[in-house]
Amino acid sequence: MPEDINEKHRQRMERINEIKDRQLASATEEKGLIIVHTGSGKGKSTAAFGMAMRSLGQGMKVGIVQFIKGAIATGEAAMIEKLSEQGFPIEMHTMGEGFTWKTQDRERDIATAMRGWQKATELIRDPSFDLIILDELNIATKYEYIPVDLVVDELLDKREMLHVVVTGRNADEQLLEVADLASEMKVIKHPYSKGIKPQPGVEF
Amino acid sequence: MPEDINEKHRQRMERINEIKDRQLASATEEKGLIIVHTGSGKGKSTAAFGMAMRSLGQGMKVGIVQFIKGAIATGEAAMIEKLSEQGFPIEMHTMGEGFTWKTQDRERDIATAMRGWQKATELIRDPSFDLIILDELNIATKYEYIPVDLVVDELLDKREMLHVVVTGRNADEQLLEVADLASEMKVIKHPYSKGIKPQPGVEF
Repeated sequence: MPEDINEKHRQRMERINEIKDRQLASATEEKGLIIVHTGSGKGKSTAAFGMAMRSLGQGMKVGIVQFIKGAIATGEAAMIEKLSEQGFPIEMHTMGEGFTWKTQDRERDIATAMRGWQKATELIRDPSFDLIILDELNIATKYEYIPVDLVVDELLDKREMLHVVVTGRNADEQLLEVADLASEMKVIKHPYSKGIKPQPGVEF
Repeated sequence: MPEDINEKHRQRMERINEIKDRQLASATEEKGLIIVHTGSGKGKSTAAFGMAMRSLGQGMKVGIVQFIKGAIATGEAAMIEKLSEQGFPIEMHTMGEGFTWKTQDRERDIATAMRGWQKATELIRDPSFDLIILDELNIATKYEYIPVDLVVDELLDKREMLHVVVTGRNADEQLLEVADLASEMKVIKHPYSKGIKPQPGVEF
């Protein structure tokens, strides 16, 4: 049994190295990107939402799995719903209602997260999608509700032209290894703001 | 004549100070905000576009005047067009085709910019709008194609509940004075990027 696990790990590392070599070589091609938005600053999900809007503008089809509720702003979620209703090729699946975050209910939280991951793999393997956003997936892997190996393997296996965006704090090192683009949103300071109450549309 | 100009300036400064006092006092109210996105880093127009999308999600009406072409990404502009066609309450007016940027054609460029400003004041004074974006207006004021005093006066006079976002490098000091929120996008570094060719949806 341990040999199987070691062998799988060795193969994964080998594939990751192959990916990295290919990335260095193929900077002029168009290819589906693995993109990570991490860090403690604001804007991770919003940047992914912006990418979703631009993709729709470019005639692409977008799928979103929201692993934990809260990161996608009210106005953004409402807009996604309006767009779906109006026939734009975008769909969002929200998985984050059932988390207990209690140590004694860990099994239950793992089951909730894995239902989200099940939906994510459905979308990833559906050839009609051009962009998939896995929002706050990094939280689920950080808590080991979803094994990061599963995520990395799925991303390594994805169709060439599919873009996948993973958001959330504390992205796993392995995920950052396979990412083509990774952004860390860092809190530097809050310039100029005078304690203005957050307002609909402007901030959420 | 000089006395009139000085008197106008004095009144403007007085109004700016009143605004600043009110801002400090009224941080718990909901009010229409004057927002500025400036600096040399990327994301000024994209952040405004995100605000437009959230606002539409919140059932608000959005107007955009694009003073200089180029800042709004292809996918974003295409999305705005699709949304208009689908009956979403958003309209964009592009003014930036006619700039020559030649010193000998300065009069003409001023006329082009002022046509844009004319449209901007129309939208600002139209009570049906909730959010107005004046994209790259800062370029026009920096080059003094549009007198910044005109802009400041119009913003000081705006309806209480209207949000106005002004984007572009080198925002004028006076504009920053009257702003409720101002963000400076600074280039720090380009982490992790491996020279990947920019792709539709993802980057534009």
